[in-house]
Parts: sequence; C-alpha cells; structure tokens
Amino acid sequence: MPNKKKYNINGESGMKAQIQFADQKQEFNKRPSKIGRRSLSRSISQSSTDSYSSAASYTDSSDDETSPRDKQQKNSKGSSDFCVKNIKQAEFGRREIEIAEQEMPALMALRKRAQGEKPLAGAKIVGCTHITAQTAVLMETLGALGAQCRWAACNIYSTLNEVAAALAESGFPVFAWKGESEDDFWWCIDRCVNVEGWQPNMILDDGGDLTHWIYKKYPNMFKKIKGIVEESVTGVHRLYQLSKAGKLCVPAMNVNDSVTKQKFDNLYCCRESILDGLKRTTDMMFGGKQVVVCGYGEVGKGCCAALKAMGSIVYVTEIDPICALQACMDGFRLVKLNEVIRQVDIVITCTGNKNVVTREHLDRMKNSCIVCNMGHSNTEIDVASLRTPELTWERVRSQVDHVIWPDGKRIVLLAEGRLLNLSCSTVPTFVLSITATTQALALIELYNAPEGRYKQDVYLLPKKMDEYVASLHLPTFDAHLTELTDEQAKYLGLNKNGPFKPNYYRY
Amino acid sequence: MPNKKKYNINGESGMKAQIQFADQKQEFNKRPSKIGRRSLSRSISQSSTDSYSSAASYTDSSDDETSPRDKQQKNSKGSSDFCVKNIKQAEFGRREIEIAEQEMPALMALRKRAQGEKPLAGAKIVGCTHITAQTAVLMETLGALGAQCRWAACNIYSTLNEVAAALAESGFPVFAWKGESEDDFWWCIDRCVNVEGWQPNMILDDGGDLTHWIYKKYPNMFKKIKGIVEESVTGVHRLYQLSKAGKLCVPAMNVNDSVTKQKFDNLYCCRESILDGLKRTTDMMFGGKQVVVCGYGEVGKGCCAALKAMGSIVYVTEIDPICALQACMDGFRLVKLNEVIRQVDIVITCTGNKNVVTREHLDRMKNSCIVCNMGHSNTEIDVASLRTPELTWERVRSQVDHVIWPDGKRIVLLAEGRLLNLSCSTVPTFVLSITATTQALALIELYNAPEGRYKQDVYLLPKKMDEYVASLHLPTFDAHLTELTDEQAKYLGLNKNGPFKPNYYRY
Amino acid sequence: MPNKKKYNINGESGMKAQIQFADQKQEFNKRPSKIGRRSLSRSISQSSTDSYSSAASYTDSSDDETSPRDKQQKNSKGSSDFCVKNIKQAEFGRREIEIAEQEMPALMALRKRAQGEKPLAGAKIVGCTHITAQTAVLMETLGALGAQCRWAACNIYSTLNEVAAALAESGFPVFAWKGESEDDFWWCIDRCVNVEGWQPNMILDDGGDLTHWIYKKYPNMFKKIKGIVEESVTGVHRLYQLSKAGKLCVPAMNVNDSVTKQKFDNLYCCRESILDGLKRTTDMMFGGKQVVVCGYGEVGKGCCAALKAMGSIVYVTEIDPICALQACMDGFRLVKLNEVIRQVDIVITCTGNKNVVTREHLDRMKNSCIVCNMGHSNTEIDVASLRTPELTWERVRSQVDHVIWPDGKRIVLLAEGRLLNLSCSTVPTFVLSITATTQALALIELYNAPEGRYKQDVYLLPKKMDEYVASLHLPTFDAHLTELTDEQAKYLGLNKNGPFKPNYYRY
Amino acid sequence: MPNKKKYNINGESGMKAQIQFADQKQEFNKRPSKIGRRSLSRSISQSSTDSYSSAASYTDSSDDETSPRDKQQKNSKGSSDFCVKNIKQAEFGRREIEIAEQEMPALMALRKRAQGEKPLAGAKIVGCTHITAQTAVLMETLGALGAQCRWAACNIYSTLNEVAAALAESGFPVFAWKGESEDDFWWCIDRCVNVEGWQPNMILDDGGDLTHWIYKKYPNMFKKIKGIVEESVTGVHRLYQLSKAGKLCVPAMNVNDSVTKQKFDNLYCCRESILDGLKRTTDMMFGGKQVVVCGYGEVGKGCCAALKAMGSIVYVTEIDPICALQACMDGFRLVKLNEVIRQVDIVITCTGNKNVVTREHLDRMKNSCIVCNMGHSNTEIDVASLRTPELTWERVRSQVDHVIWPDGKRIVLLAEGRLLNLSCSTVPTFVLSITATTQALALIELYNAPEGRYKQDVYLLPKKMDEYVASLHLPTFDAHLTELTDEQAKYLGLNKNGPFKPNYYRY
Repeated sequence: MPNKKKYNINGESGMKAQIQFADQKQEFNKRPSKIGRRSLSRSISQSSTDSYSSAASYTDSSDDETSPRDKQQKNSKGSSDFCVKNIKQAEFGRREIEIAEQEMPALMALRKRAQGEKPLAGAKIVGCTHITAQTAVLMETLGALGAQCRWAACNIYSTLNEVAAALAESGFPVFAWKGESEDDFWWCIDRCVNVEGWQPNMILDDGGDLTHWIYKKYPNMFKKIKGIVEESVTGVHRLYQLSKAGKLCVPAMNVNDSVTKQKFDNLYCCRESILDGLKRTTDMMFGGKQVVVCGYGEVGKGCCAALKAMGSIVYVTEIDPICALQACMDGFRLVKLNEVIRQVDIVITCTGNKNVVTREHLDRMKNSCIVCNMGHSNTEIDVASLRTPELTWERVRSQVDHVIWPDGKRIVLLAEGRLLNLSCSTVPTFVLSITATTQALALIELYNAPEGRYKQDVYLLPKKMDEYVASLHLPTFDAHLTELTDEQAKYLGLNKNGPFKPNYYRY
Repeated sequence: MPNKKKYNINGESGMKAQIQFADQKQEFNKRPSKIGRRSLSRSISQSSTDSYSSAASYTDSSDDETSPRDKQQKNSKGSSDFCVKNIKQAEFGRREIEIAEQEMPALMALRKRAQGEKPLAGAKIVGCTHITAQTAVLMETLGALGAQCRWAACNIYSTLNEVAAALAESGFPVFAWKGESEDDFWWCIDRCVNVEGWQPNMILDDGGDLTHWIYKKYPNMFKKIKGIVEESVTGVHRLYQLSKAGKLCVPAMNVNDSVTKQKFDNLYCCRESILDGLKRTTDMMFGGKQVVVCGYGEVGKGCCAALKAMGSIVYVTEIDPICALQACMDGFRLVKLNEVIRQVDIVITCTGNKNVVTREHLDRMKNSCIVCNMGHSNTEIDVASLRTPELTWERVRSQVDHVIWPDGKRIVLLAEGRLLNLSCSTVPTFVLSITATTQALALIELYNAPEGRYKQDVYLLPKKMDEYVASLHLPTFDAHLTELTDEQAKYLGLNKNGPFKPNYYRY
Repeated sequence: MPNKKKYNINGESGMKAQIQFADQKQEFNKRPSKIGRRSLSRSISQSSTDSYSSAASYTDSSDDETSPRDKQQKNSKGSSDFCVKNIKQAEFGRREIEIAEQEMPALMALRKRAQGEKPLAGAKIVGCTHITAQTAVLMETLGALGAQCRWAACNIYSTLNEVAAALAESGFPVFAWKGESEDDFWWCIDRCVNVEGWQPNMILDDGGDLTHWIYKKYPNMFKKIKGIVEESVTGVHRLYQLSKAGKLCVPAMNVNDSVTKQKFDNLYCCRESILDGLKRTTDMMFGGKQVVVCGYGEVGKGCCAALKAMGSIVYVTEIDPICALQACMDGFRLVKLNEVIRQVDIVITCTGNKNVVTREHLDRMKNSCIVCNMGHSNTEIDVASLRTPELTWERVRSQVDHVIWPDGKRIVLLAEGRLLNLSCSTVPTFVLSITATTQALALIELYNAPEGRYKQDVYLLPKKMDEYVASLHLPTFDAHLTELTDEQAKYLGLNKNGPFKPNYYRY
Repeated sequence: MPNKKKYNINGESGMKAQIQFADQKQEFNKRPSKIGRRSLSRSISQSSTDSYSSAASYTDSSDDETSPRDKQQKNSKGSSDFCVKNIKQAEFGRREIEIAEQEMPALMALRKRAQGEKPLAGAKIVGCTHITAQTAVLMETLGALGAQCRWAACNIYSTLNEVAAALAESGFPVFAWKGESEDDFWWCIDRCVNVEGWQPNMILDDGGDLTHWIYKKYPNMFKKIKGIVEESVTGVHRLYQLSKAGKLCVPAMNVNDSVTKQKFDNLYCCRESILDGLKRTTDMMFGGKQVVVCGYGEVGKGCCAALKAMGSIVYVTEIDPICALQACMDGFRLVKLNEVIRQVDIVITCTGNKNVVTREHLDRMKNSCIVCNMGHSNTEIDVASLRTPELTWERVRSQVDHVIWPDGKRIVLLAEGRLLNLSCSTVPTFVLSITATTQALALIELYNAPEGRYKQDVYLLPKKMDEYVASLHLPTFDAHLTELTDEQAKYLGLNKNGPFKPNYYRY
C-alpha cells in the first residue's frame, strides 16, 4: 500500500509541470524521486493521489483487504455495473446523502423545477470528481434532470466508500473506493467511458485526468461530446493549454473562476477553516497571538479577518502593492517576513508561490512557532529543506509534526506543508453546494446551447448564471431579494432579471 | 445670486440625461423646473453647480461683493494672468497647501523623481477640477514635472478662494472663485483655453465641461491635443458616448474605474465618512441603533462595516443576488425595505438607483427616523414627494431638515437627499491623493505614449500604473513590500515588477 | 473677560487639590500662576470654569454685551425670578428641549408613571449642573414628579442660553448664562438658595460647588435637607473627604460609580466620541494609521475598539497587569510608550494619570503626529513643557494647534491637552439620559427613604435602581427582556424583579 | 461499567443540591432516577462523574480490562506508592507534560524563582483535581517549590492515563485512572490521605469531594491543615455553606472568583471554544447563520462576539436589564426566545439557569436547528422532555444526536445538553495556566501567611496576587508593562507595585 506521507497533496503545485500531455515521461522525471515508483501510470496528476483529510471519513477503514476489483457485488436490483468497496454500506451512505441534501437547497430546488421539463434529457455524463455525499447530491440531481451518469473518483484517497455504495445501490454506475492504486485509478476511469452501447456526450471533470484519458485513448469519442465542465485550477490550466495549442476539440466551461466560487470558496470558507484547522491540530488559543499571513488575496483576506476577530495580532506580507494597500487600510501592518519572523507565534502562507517560507526563515523562528499553508500548493513552505540529518522530526498527532533543532527549538509543522484546510479541517457543505450548483448549470448550459453559441474554446459561466447560482442559495439565509421596478430598470438600463453588473465588476 | 438650495448636488444623477451634447435644450427641459432659469448656459452639467460641502471651506465668505472679473489684481511678481477672489489670501492658502502636501506623499515622490528628467516637459495642460488644496498639490506637481498649466473650476461653489489665490501668487493662471455665476463658469473655462500664443496639448477634466467647451468652440484645438484624462462618472460616460458615436478625436483615459479609485474611494472612504456625516449632522449614538442600508456595492459594504463595528444592527437590501449573498455571509440580514421600514432608526441609500426610498416608505417610517443618501445620485430618495402641503419642513441645522407629518411624526432628512459624504463630512486627503496621483500618471502616460499605443478611444489606466500608484502610497503606512525572487517570478510566470494580476482579478 | 486659554478644563485633575475646603488659599497657591488672578473666588472648582465644547452651542454668541445681572427681564407670565441671557430665545430653546425629549424616553416614562402619585411632591430641589437641553428635560421631569426646582450652572461656559431662556419662560427659576464671571457664578448659586420663603430640602450637585456654598454660607440649611445627589468624580471625592472627616451632615448618593454610568458613559460613549473628536478636528483617515492608546480602562477599551474597527493599528500601554492581559487577549500589542513613539501617527491618553506623555516623548514623535487626551484630567500630556521659546505654536483651527520644532517638525495638539470628547465632540443624548435618569431616581430614593435607611454617609445607588434605569432605556432599542418563571427564580434564589447580580459582579 | 450517558456532566447544575453534607440521602433523592443506582457512594458530587471530552484523550482506551487496583506496578526507582492504569505509558505522558510546560510559562517562572528559597518547603499537599498534562505541570511546580504531594482525580473519566503514569514514574504518589468506578473514586482519595507517617497540611480541591472526605472520615486531620484552596463553583459553594454553618475549621481560598479566572476563563475562552465546539461536532458554516444566545454574562458575551465576528446574525435573550443594555450597545437584538425560535439556525444557552430552552421551544424550532449549552449546568435545555416515545433519537457522531419529530423535523442536539466546551472542544493550555498559577499562589499565600492573617473563613485571593498572576502571563505575549514613576504613583496615591485598582473595579 502506498505510504501516505510520500504523496503530495495538491496537484496545483505542479500546475506548470502537468499540463503537457505530450511528453509526460520527461516531465515526470522532474518530480521528487519519492514518487518515482508510481511507474505504472506516470501521467496521473498529483491531485489524484492527494491524501485527503481523514476528517471527511465517516467510518474507520474496514479490515477487508480484498480489492473491490476482485469482488462480485450486486445491488438489491440485481445490477453489478459498479465497483465499490462494500455495497452493504449503502444504508449508512444514504443517510449521509440525506443530511447533505438538507444543506444543498439549490440542487434540491433544481430538482423540483425539473419535474416538468428535463433539461438534461438525453445527456450522458461521464464524471470524475471526489466521491462525497455532496457529489452524490449533485449526481442524483443530474439524474433527476434527465441525465444518465457514470462516475469515477478524481483522487485515490478521497472516496467515501459508504456514499459510493449508496450511489451504486440506487443504480448509478460508480467505480471508486478509498485507497485505490494508480492502476485502479485508471481502470475505474476506463470503466466509466469504455462501455458497450453507451457513449458519453458530456464530461464533468475535476483535475483533467478523465479528459486526458479520453484524449489519449478514445479521441474519437469527442465527436459526440458537447462539452467539458472543469472545476479545478489544474484542469482549467490544462484546458487553456490545449486551447492555445489548438487541440481543444469541444467547448469547455471553466467554473473555477466564477465569482461565486472565487469570492465564496476562498474568502468566506478560509475565514472559517483557518480557525478550525489550527484548533483541531494544535488546540492553541488565538487571543493575543502574533501571526504573519503571507499573501493578501482572497484566502489571505479570509485568514486575516478571522484571526484579527479572534484577538490575534496579524502582520501581512505582500508582493502586489494594491493588495498591500488593502491590507494597510484593513488594519494590518505590512512587513517583510524577515522583520517579524523571530517574534511571531504562527506563520500562514496564502500565496500560490513557492519557497515563501525558506529554511532560513525556519531557522530563525522562535520555539513552538506553528507553520502552515493555506495557499494553492505544497511548495509555499520549503519543507524539503527540513529533511536534513541535523533536524529531528517527531509526529505528535495526525497531521502535526514537531521539527526539532539541535538546540532543542522546535517548530510545529502542520500537514507537512500541504493545504491545512484540505488536510485538517472540513469544508462546509454550503460552500460545496455553490460549486456543485455551478457545475450543474454549466452542464445544462453547454448541453442545451444552440449550435454556434460556444466554439472550441474555454468559457466562463455567463454572469447571469452566476447570479442564478447565488439566488438559489439565498433561501438558506431566509434572505429576501429586492426586485427592480420597471422604472428603475429603465433608469439603470438593466434587464429586471439581470445580469446586474458589467463583466469587470469586482464585487 | 442663485439659491443654493435650488441646485442639486450631484451630476451623476443625471448621468443619462447629460451626455447628449447635440440636443441640450430639449434634454434640459427634463430637469426640475426650479433650475430652469439658468437659461444663459443650459449645457452646464449639474455637477458644476453642486453646492459643495461647507466643511471644505476654511474661512467664512468674505463680505466683498465685487465680482472678481471686475477687479484688477496682480500677484507679487506683477502678473495678472489669473482671476481669483482675492490675491491677498495667498498666504493662508499656501499654508493649507503645505498641510495637504504632508498627506500626499505620492505626488511629492513624483516631484522628487522628476528632478532629473521632466516627463511632462513641453506639456501644456488645461485643467478643470475642484480647486482645493489637494488639487493645488497636483497642479504644482505637474509644474514640477515640466508642464505648463491653466486651470478653471469644475464647480461653481467648490473653489477655495485662498488656495486659488496661493496658486495665482506662485504664477499659475487660475480662473476660479467660490460662488461663480454660470456665465462666470464658462468665462473662466474660456480664459483657460482661449489664450494668445498658447495652446493646450493635454486636457485634465472632471465632469466633461471643459472637454465639451473645446468640442463646441475650438474643435480645431484637438489637432494638437494628445489626450484627455477624465475622472468623473459623468465625464467618463460622456466620453464613452462620444466614442460610440465615433466623435472622439483623441485618446482618453478613464481614471474613474481604476482599482485604487474604486476600492479605496468607495469602500474605505465611505466606511469612515458615513460615521462622520451622521455624527456631524445629528450627534446620534450608533450603538444599538437599527439601520437599513440599501445596496451592498462598495459604498454599501463600507457603510455596513462601519456601522456594525460601532454596534448598530444593520439590515441590507439588494437587487443583485451575488452582492446579496455577500451581505449574508458578512452577517447582515437581507430584507426588503418594506419589512423593516417601520422599525429602523436610520435609512441609508447606496444604490445609484432612483426612488429607492419612496413616499410610501417615508410615510411608514417611525418618528425621528434619519434618512440619508450615500449613493451616486440625489434621486435615490424621492425627496420631491415630501414637498407637499400637508408636510412641514423645518431646517434645524445646516443640512438637516425635519419633515413633519400632520400627526406630529417627524423624519430627519440629511442634505435634502443629496450625497451625505459630499455635503456633511470631509474627504480625507489621503484618498484624494490616490486619485490625484492616478491623474498625474495618466497624463504622463498619454503624453509620452509612442504613436499608436492609444487610438481615439477610452482607456483604463494600465494595471501596472495602478500598482505604481498604490506603491507610492505605501510609505504613508510605513509598509514594506516583499519582492519576488527570480525563481519565484519564473515559477509564477510574472515580471518581478508587475503587473501582478490578470485584468479580471477582483481584489 | 477671562481668557479661555488660561483655564484648565477639568477639575478632576485637581482632584486632590480641591477637596480641602478648610485651607483653600494655601492649596490654591499650588495652581499654575496663570489662574492665580481669580482671586475673588478662589474656592471655585476648576471644573466650574472649563471651556466647554463649542460643539454644544446651537447659536453663535450674541453681540449683546450687557450682563444679564443688569437686565430687567420678565417671562410671558410676568415672572422675573430668573436670570438668563435673553428670555426671547425661549422658543428656540424649547425646540431643542423637545428634540432632546425624544431621545430621553426613560425620563418621559417616569413622567407618565408619575401622573397619579407624585413621588417628589413637596420636594424643593436646588440644582447646580450644566444647563443643556438634556438637563432641562431632567428638570421638567422633576417638576412633573411634584418637585419645585431652582437651578444654577456648574460651569461658567457650558450654559446654553436658549435652553436657560426656555426654562425661565416655563417658570423655572434659572440663574445661568454662557460666559459668567466667577463672581457671577457664585451670585447665581446664591440666588438659588438664598430665597425668602423657600428653603431647599434636596441638593443635586455636579462638582460640589453648590454643596460647598451651602456648607460655607448657610450651614443651618442642612437641617431640612434630606440628601445630596452628586454626579462628578470631583464632587464625590469631596463628599468622601467630608464623610471621612465626620463633617457630612446628610446622606449623599454617589451616582458617579453606578454601573450604568461607568460602563456606558466610559466604554460606549468613548467608543464613539474618539472617532468623532478626531474627525471634527483633523479630518484624518483612520484606516492604516498607527495609534498608541495609553491606558486600557473602560475609556481606553472604548477608544481601542473603535479605532481597530476602523482599520487603525493600535498599540496599548498599561501599568496594571490585569488590564494589560485584557489588552493582549483583545488583540493589541502591549508596549512601553518609548517603543512606538517614533512610529505612531496618533497618541491618545486615557489614564487619569499625570505626565503620561512627557516632553521627551513629544520631542521624539514623528512629523504630523496627533496628540490628544481622552482621560480624566488635563495633566496627562505635559502641555506646559511645550510652552517654551524654541517651539512655535500655530492655531490652525478651533481646538487644533500645531506645535512646531526648530527643524520644522510639527505635532498636532488637540484641545491643548484637555479632554477631547468634552472639547471637540458631542455627547449623545442617550448617554446623558442614563445619567439624568439615575439622578432622578437617586433624588426619589433619598427623598422617600424611611428614616434610618440612610445615614450621614455616601451611598451608591441600590443595584435594583441601577437595573431599573437600564430597563427604562431598553425600549429605545425595542429590546424585549425575558422574565424569570417562578421555578427559575427559585432555582437561582433570586427575586423575579431583581436585583439579579451580587454586588461584586463585574459586568 | 457505568453507562456514560447516565451521568450528568456538571456538578454546578446541582449547586444547591450538593452542598448539604448533613442530609445527603434526602437531597440525593431529588436527582433524576437514572443516576439513582449510584447507591454505594451517594455523596459523590456529580462533577466527579462527568463524562469528560474525548478530545482530551491522547490515546485510545487500552484493551486491558484488569483494574489498576488489582495490578502490581513499580516505577523505575522501585516505588509502588501509586495506582495508575499502566506505568509503561510514562514516556508518552512525559512528552505531553513537556509540551504543556511550553505554554505554562508562569509556573515555569515560579520554579525558576524558587531555586533559592523554597516557599513550600515542608508543605504536604493533598490534591484532588482533573489529572491532565497541565495539572502535572502544576504538581511538579509545587514539588519544585518544596512541597510533597499526593494526588487523586476529581472526576472518574477525566484522567489521562499516560500523564498519571509519567507522574508516578517521577515519584509522585498518584492514584487515578480513566474510568474509575465510584468505589475506586473514593478509594483513590482515601489512599492519598490515609497514609502512615504522612499527614497533609494543605488541601487543593476541585469540587469539594476531597475536603468532604476528610471532614467525614478524618476530621482530626484539620488540626494540622493550614488551609484549603478550592477552584470550582460547586466546591466554593460548599465552603461558603460550611462557613455560614460555622463548621469551616481552616481558612479557605476561593480561586474561582478571582478576576483572571472569571474574565479570562469565561469571556476569552468561550469566545474561542464556541466556534471550536460547533465546528468539531457539526462542520457547520458560521457565515450568515442566525443564532440566538440565551444570557449575556461573560460566557454569552464571548459566544456572541465570536459568532458575530464570523458573520453570524446573533440575537440575545436576557433577564437582567443591565446586561441587556450591554447587548444592545454591542449591536445585538434583544429578544424573547419565542420571538426568534422559529427562524434561528442555532440556539446556545449561557445562563446558569434551568429550563431556558423548553420542550415548547424545541417543538417550534425549524428543521436542522442546532441546540447546545455553554452555561454552567446541564439543566439549561430541558433534554429530559425530549426523551418521549414520539421522538426518535439518532446518534450521528460522538456527542451529536439528531432528535426526530414524527413529521420528519430533526434538531441537532450537542453533548446531550451538557457543556459544549467541556465535551466537544479543548481548553487552551494558556487558560489552564492562569488557573494553575492562581492555585499555586493561593497555596503559597495560605501556607506562609502569618498567624492571624486568615481566619476560619473563605477568602478571595488578594488583588495584588491576582495582578501577579496576570503579570506572569504577559511574557507569553511579549507584552511590556509600563511602570509608574514615583511622581505618578504619588499623584495617584498608589504603591508602584500595585494593587492598582479598588476592589470594586469591574475591569
């Protein structure tokens, strides 16, 4: 079984490295040697092998060591067109799905509206995402909208076996389990697309591996495919590369850069998960602590706001003068990391950059300083520089290492420098609901778009749909939107139903 | 003399109305009749006759009733190429300019850097803006950068006579005083452009009146003009109209929509001025008060943040579901105005829309409710509906009216529904500094741009310049920017000196 | 006429100095020589000659130079038992009183409840307080409760002439005007107590001057006096001294130390007035400014909370480790003043101590640093040390001085180091309402207390009355209190109507 | 083995019930019948059998079912004067103690200062507290100060076996393990006091059980005992009862009501633990959620501040008008629970009262409403009323139950209505450090006090010591206290070393 520690959690880090499909072998060699042995399937993106947070796991790993591929399982209707860990866990998974449904009102609303017309009637969607209760709600919503779906996992660790079982039980051909090997990973994807008598006409991807597989193995399939919906930074980057290279042969929708995703996932979600992640790992008290946050983008803004509100004293580093000026106006001292590194209790990176925290910084930190990463990659902290003989590593809890200097100083490294919020805290269903709804709408849009509206290019979701996603989430807060009068709409030169803002509006 | 009360404060309200130069007479008739008598110069934009905040006036109006146009004045060097209220006030004005210089470090830095090269050498700039200490710092900076300037006021009330005197004393041909008639207004503009032996090659405008005058009277002048820099919403709108109509004959720079202006002027400035405006007019206590803020754009966000921080309970109304969802996540109940109108202590409009607060709402407000406008126009509150015989108006302080219902209920109307922050609070020099620096850089860019970089169109300031403006303001906060290493810049695919973000970045 | 600048604003500074009535002459000699010439009435407390904020003045000072004492005035009912500036201003004053009534619901509620029984029937109250619209509401409430009142001002500058006129017009014997001489001051007090056929049986004092006068001139009067209600720190201190010395001959109620006064006046009121005071005097922007607040008591807590909320970076100095630890937990860096004095933009004192800001600190401040005092005395900043020949003082606005060092550095000194919130901002009526209600209830309690409940000592208002004052202010916020069930009251061992907390409870 | 569910977590709830030692049987019968079977030792306080948070448990419960009482264990020095689960876990426990030491700088400072003089030389301390890493640091500090200690657990579940082992290994006679029976509980206590050749002269108690045991079994021991230090509300209450009844035969120190404990434990600690507790149990998002907090004491203030800061909309209920007015001024709508019960997403009780949330309230809550208790007792929510046949309970996670109504509505009940922060979140070491330091100083004070300073009564820690505890914690924040100059101390009438405030100061 692969050693968790040897895998990096976040594919985004390798953003640049992984987008070239052409010459993977060469590219692959640039990776740290420790993952070099994944020789069977070198093109797998790193994100596919992230060690996903155990926080998301409802039950302990079963003792059953038999590979699901070797099992004979049938659901209660007699179907065996699936491959999950244990179909008997379906009931527990169903309850998780039901709980998630309560916090995903937007998808439930889409189901309701679709009782008459089925906007996805005839759609054959192949999907490759994390398999969680929230994804299950999405998948069953797509079904309710008329689509047929086949699904694989985009990550070898993140599948919730119970949920996969519940989906299989209710008739979804799902091929995924927690702890897949890389061979399993591609086998599952292949089982989704390589089906007799069934050919997908829509792709929902998270990371680009599914898209990549079809490009590589079944390029002819694209003739029938109406479009790709892609969620991740990595996958979107791959699509833009394909587009630039003139190789993108269907329209693609970039849902990663929609307003609701960016402002809500990043700002609001990080505002909460920084506190949660730090508490769950260290039980530290925030009040009075000195913290430096590297980067004042949406993620940094969220972290800073939360920690300030809890009584921490927060310093910010920035490279962009505009964000820097925002930090100043928001009440944070803008410093260089060197200026405060000796005095802070916590260092948090939120930059998307590499080597923001260097060994030199680590050497100068005070005893018990906590170091963690909330940014986009696992390269922000130069963790590799800590793996030297003179330093001792001590695992004190799951996701928490003490790195000890010869003089006894120790720093507290969280999640080995990988993403704290993915590793050590949970993501609220509400945020996932926004993303899932965006994906559903993007599928509907691409599937129903009249010939010619979308070309072989990468598109952002139309603003009106972004607004629609938002409006579907307002009832959660019992929020009441005001409607423009005819006179007001005319005065503003707007349609009463939106879109309400120019494209360049910054929110 | 025109009655101040009879003029609306803010040209933006008439955004749509005033952009057509072709058919002003007709358009003009749509205005409220009370300003109909300004017949001599009907094309003057409303913004030119705003009654500007008395807060910005350093000294009481002089008793001298003689028109400056009828006076013979010379500065100490013997020049009489100016027209101001009283050249003898120069010394007092100089001190105000010196105080402003201390809070406009970015312009002072530009002066310093320009000691060798003069990026505006040869530039002949004609300007039409508010004449304040801050403008004076801008003007003298342009001079230090090598430019010759001639200047008029963009508003008949906003000129600070002492500052105008100080500028005239140090050799700037300034034509402006507080309380110009409309005839004076155009006369002053004309004195700036219609000069023997001097022809402008750059225009700096605020509201579009100067541009309009040249279009109308001296269209040939555009042959030598390299570009227009325009700051206001109204002026920018006019330029886009000209551009659409194919009539824009030089490049123009829209500095209104630059990030620094939008995020800083609107969000941060309103965060402070809403408190200031309410305190100066009503001495109210914020703690525990129930407030409804209409509109959750940058202005609304600033108002809500400040009032919440001071212990008010804030409700928000919105038409845009995305902004609405932001309000929810920021902790505000999203309501329709009707739901809370009976219970709130304060109503604040920040919409840019019209009739957001109607007579019906006003009828239902509770006794002593305060009503004010922080948005873009004076039409947000239907003040006209309050000018009916059954209601009694009582002016209780400058800018504060009690409107009294027959049953004794009174509401407190601030600034007659015009902009509270323009009428009843002051604008920090720091914010004006950001805008002034942006204007200076836009002038430099347009003046030095190689042939062909800019066409006859309206441009936004290049992001890199936006970033430069921000960076010039960081020393105010003793803020230390981090520089990318070569390795990091390469990793991110960025130039070490910026720009650091894609154009669609939302900040 | 006395030069305003020569009087210190706040009697508390002289707390120790002014409590000995016995040996005033000697004590007096310790005062700065500049007030030495007030030889006619040396026992006047400093607070009596505070230069009160002009912000509280509704109309400009009249040109009428005739002393009110020399005028013959009658109100519309023919009475001339009063002495005010100009009885004709009564109507304007009445409107101010009416406005104040709207924000003093607790007193209005007391009036309503008193329609049947008159708890002050027979009370003859002599009062000596600031004469403002809010005091007028108190006075007229006492009248409605059955009391007869005679009133003088406790400060030679703070009287609002219009309000005094309105009171006189409605029949209150008021003896007060703005700009009294010290001789006038004592004359007015004397006219209140030295009346044929009328002798007070209750005293309402603010500062102790009235009490002192009666002690000195009419000691026999105390035989009929049922009690003293005193509001100020100074006055309370004097009473405790009298009590200690065994000279207090009637019960006295200390309303200064009631919870509602301390927590609300200090914390909440300062939270708002620090922002207001700084804005009105300097128009500064708070965002990003570095501020040091000296002292983290209630006043300091309020200042820090407000400035942090507005985006300032706030440092705190403290001598008390408990308050210091609170500052830390609330997110403020605890420093010694020396550590940050070179870098801060604003210095605010809230200590009640002396020479907290020394000349040495002032010498080290950076250019344009703002210095002000929110504490209890005018000695917190060593302003005297700035009155040396090498420094130039420049008055740039009312209450704003630039003090200029030989090298050109200037600091901005507000209110000459006196209390910023008293000098440069207004106090919300709501806060004054709490105090006024407390005074009214203290009068009722002392007047109606059965023989023996109170001895010749200084008492705090019973907690139950403190709670009652609070409850009378809840309707302002439409706040709904929960009532204990019988079962709950029993469980907690409380009376359902309170008091709800032990005396040592800290709130 | 006792069923966890059958024990109430918090002795405070039974405050009234447990203080009478005289008539326990009778009193006991009032308890809910489900704990009736604890017949062997009815006087055990409820707090002794709290089911302590599993969050505080470092390792999974061992499979070893042998009772520690039946084991023969020796530490490495050959001693067997202890009784713990497994002496071999000592090394792991030592590491936990070392980690705790890093966050308990005040105790470490006390050790350092005691290197010369040993203020507890000769002290023989018997203790009964939770046995955690933090307690271990306290115990070893007492040892370093010269004391001999013997220790038992005050709660049958809260002992960390590894820590107990580490203490035993280093020579402390510790008698405690996780999962004691009630018989074990008293046996352990007895083993601490009933020792040949050793008699305690100081008592450190938490809950009063140890004190009670000595009173009951070895009353003569009090002849040599110099004092009792008691931390808990329950224990303090028992002491006051003893004192009132004239039965307290030694001085006792109430450390529960010291400022540092009250303000820091309650306000700051709850500010953090409410977020932590809710996240760990429900993974909910705070932003935009509607919350009602019952009670606005220190705990309620902390909860409200945190939730507001995270973007929740918070309503408050109160019975005390003063706290209610504070809630208003802090920006919370004050409501009766009934007014908002249908709309809120979360209900949090912080009252110390009983039946604050009744079955009627629970019936009216909306689907998925979360209900939890942060107050002093497990009676705040009427959980018993939910144990009726028509409602279904579903345990969805540890400490999380769904209670399901016949119509499908479910509410989410946390910790079965027991204290959320004790059950579902961890307490920061820093807070425990404050309490532990206070305990150590109280022991030193009582042990060294000259004859006659303390009588047979209950005392608060002298304010100066409270200040000293605070000062020992300032270095954690790198906080620098300012010292009074001689002149300032004289001016304020204070000793330069404190105490700095009168006893009634509210902080």
